Amino acid sequence: MAIKILITSGPTREYIDPVRFISNASSGKMGKALVEAALKQKCEVIVVKGPSAVEIKNTKNCKVIDVISTKDMLSAVKENLKFADIFIGAAAVSDYRPAIVAKNKIKKKNVGSNTITVKLVKNPDIIKYVSLHKKKQVVVGFALETKNLISYAKTKLKEKKLDMIVANDSSTISSKNSAPTLIFKNGNIKKLNLVSKEKVAKEIINESIGIFKTIKTC
Amino acid sequence: MAIKILITSGPTREYIDPVRFISNASSGKMGKALVEAALKQKCEVIVVKGPSAVEIKNTKNCKVIDVISTKDMLSAVKENLKFADIFIGAAAVSDYRPAIVAKNKIKKKNVGSNTITVKLVKNPDIIKYVSLHKKKQVVVGFALETKNLISYAKTKLKEKKLDMIVANDSSTISSKNSAPTLIFKNGNIKKLNLVSKEKVAKEIINESIGIFKTIKTC
Repeated sequence: MAIKILITSGPTREYIDPVRFISNASSGKMGKALVEAALKQKCEVIVVKGPSAVEIKNTKNCKVIDVISTKDMLSAVKENLKFADIFIGAAAVSDYRPAIVAKNKIKKKNVGSNTITVKLVKNPDIIKYVSLHKKKQVVVGFALETKNLISYAKTKLKEKKLDMIVANDSSTISSKNSAPTLIFKNGNIKKLNLVSKEKVAKEIINESIGIFKTIKTC
Repeated sequence: MAIKILITSGPTREYIDPVRFISNASSGKMGKALVEAALKQKCEVIVVKGPSAVEIKNTKNCKVIDVISTKDMLSAVKENLKFADIFIGAAAVSDYRPAIVAKNKIKKKNVGSNTITVKLVKNPDIIKYVSLHKKKQVVVGFALETKNLISYAKTKLKEKKLDMIVANDSSTISSKNSAPTLIFKNGNIKKLNLVSKEKVAKEIINESIGIFKTIKTC
């Protein structure tokens, strides 16, 4: 039977009002590359995709679920986790969302105060949910930092009980290439050279399948 | 001599930290359609383009200036306004930006308060700058609202001393089509049916050129 992989991809958006939102520059290219690498390995894929210009086709072996916010992404993950052998959280989700979403576009004030204050609340943590509710699934996370990358990534790997984490510095966002460090549960570290996201994706998929097969045969 | 048109296009982004930003879903499709319609009318175009997946080619008659924030967009407009006969502000600029931009990615707090507060300050008003500093230029603005659209648009037309305003409801963002109302300085109103952004762009360019020629011959 085909190995089933659940992938999250792209950014999420958290609306302040019907027009403005908080997001990030994630292009969704890594998610798409992961989907393609998984399909090449004859896996079945479900991809939960935040809004980006990258298009992923719905096919017999690839189901695409479009979402906007982190909460929507979590709902789709909750519904589909049970079908997965491997979960790869490649989405750059928004950690925070506005506490209140204005019903109408907030008008620019022309009199009085020049400032407005937006209160943000923490979003649910998707990968934490997956780790708490996983059965036999292999769980792969991503870390993106502007400083202390490897140390933060190792902490995240441990705290979120991941099997592998892909550590990227922030230059990878929107870029065609990436030079991540793969850090494994068993302490192994694999630094990839600056290569295309397609090559990185192939590596991540192959490593994930490798871990899945090891667990399965235990 | 060719008529020169300065166009702003796409959204702008206002960074909270090196990863997160505030923006909107403007696709830049209207800006691109305006550029193409202007080039078909043998105009020379300078387009100041905020980040979006839409690509506009730099050619002999079309200079593309890429920008990120509203302040960057204003700087590019300031430098290029003097070359223009017509200014079309089609960009969906961010009205507000974070008062402070964090140097490093803000870490999600795992202890203590679940909320963070972002203080936003008003951005400079690009179309107001153009209206205050214009000489003979025709100035065309856009209005996008979720309620009281026509009334807000008429107020903006008057306050910003525009020659024409294109009033859209918020469903037009990211869409291929649009059904705007064109409102003119002389009080005329022209409601367009739901048509492609290419058709709307052609209409806007033709009307703008018409106004420019009328002014020129006065």
